[in-house]
Amino acid sequence: MSDEIDLSAKLATFSEHWSPRTVAQFNDCDVMVVKVKGEFIWHKHDDTDDFFLVLSGVLDIQLRDRVVTLRPGQMYVVPKGVEHRPVAREEVHLLLIEPTGTPNTGDAATAAPRRTV
Amino acid sequence: MSDEIDLSAKLATFSEHWSPRTVAQFNDCDVMVVKVKGEFIWHKHDDTDDFFLVLSGVLDIQLRDRVVTLRPGQMYVVPKGVEHRPVAREEVHLLLIEPTGTPNTGDAATAAPRRTV
Repeated sequence: MSDEIDLSAKLATFSEHWSPRTVAQFNDCDVMVVKVKGEFIWHKHDDTDDFFLVLSGVLDIQLRDRVVTLRPGQMYVVPKGVEHRPVAREEVHLLLIEPTGTPNTGDAATAAPRRTV
Repeated sequence: MSDEIDLSAKLATFSEHWSPRTVAQFNDCDVMVVKVKGEFIWHKHDDTDDFFLVLSGVLDIQLRDRVVTLRPGQMYVVPKGVEHRPVAREEVHLLLIEPTGTPNTGDAATAAPRRTV
C-alpha cells in the first residue's frame, strides 16, 4: 500500500452524501473527505472549530448573519460555538478536519457514523 | 474583508521559500501555506504529527526507510517523532497544519518565524 493519500481517489470509492470518510489521522483529529449536496441542518460544535476546504463545487456555509461561499481551493474555519449550515446547490467535495469523535451534526444522536476509506 | 480563505491568493502575496504563512487558526493549530524548493533539513517533531497537502508541484517527503511522493491533491501525515526531509525539485505549494508555535525545523533555534497573510 502506498503512503500518499490521494483525495480524488478516496472520493471515488463512495457516492453517498453527508457521509464523511476518514482518510488520515492528525494528532487527535480525523482528516476526512465528504460529498455533500443539498441543505444540511443548522448545528454548532461547542468544543471544536470546524475546518472546511472545498476540493470541487461551490459550498455555501450559512451563518446566522451572513453566508460564506467557498469555491475550489478556498477554505474556512467555523469557530467553535458558531451555528452554521452547509448548503450545496450541486454536489461538492470537501476536505474536513475535526477532532476524532466529533458528531457531524453537533449531536451524537443524529450524527453520521465515522467510516474509513 | 471577505471570510473565505483563497489559498492561491494567499500564496500570491509572497515568494520566499520555506517561510510558512498562517492563513487560519483551527483549534490550537496554525493552518499555513508555504512555497518550497530544494532540500529542507532532516528533522522531526516530538510532540506533533505533521500535515502536508500538495496544492501544486511534486513533493518528496524523504523518510529514513522510504520516500513518499505527493502530487497535487495528495496528502500525507508524518507521525510525531518520525524523521523526515521534504525535497522539492521544482517549486511546490503546500498546505500545512501544525500546532501553533511548532518550529518548522523541529528546533526553535533554527525555525522560520511564523508570519500571517
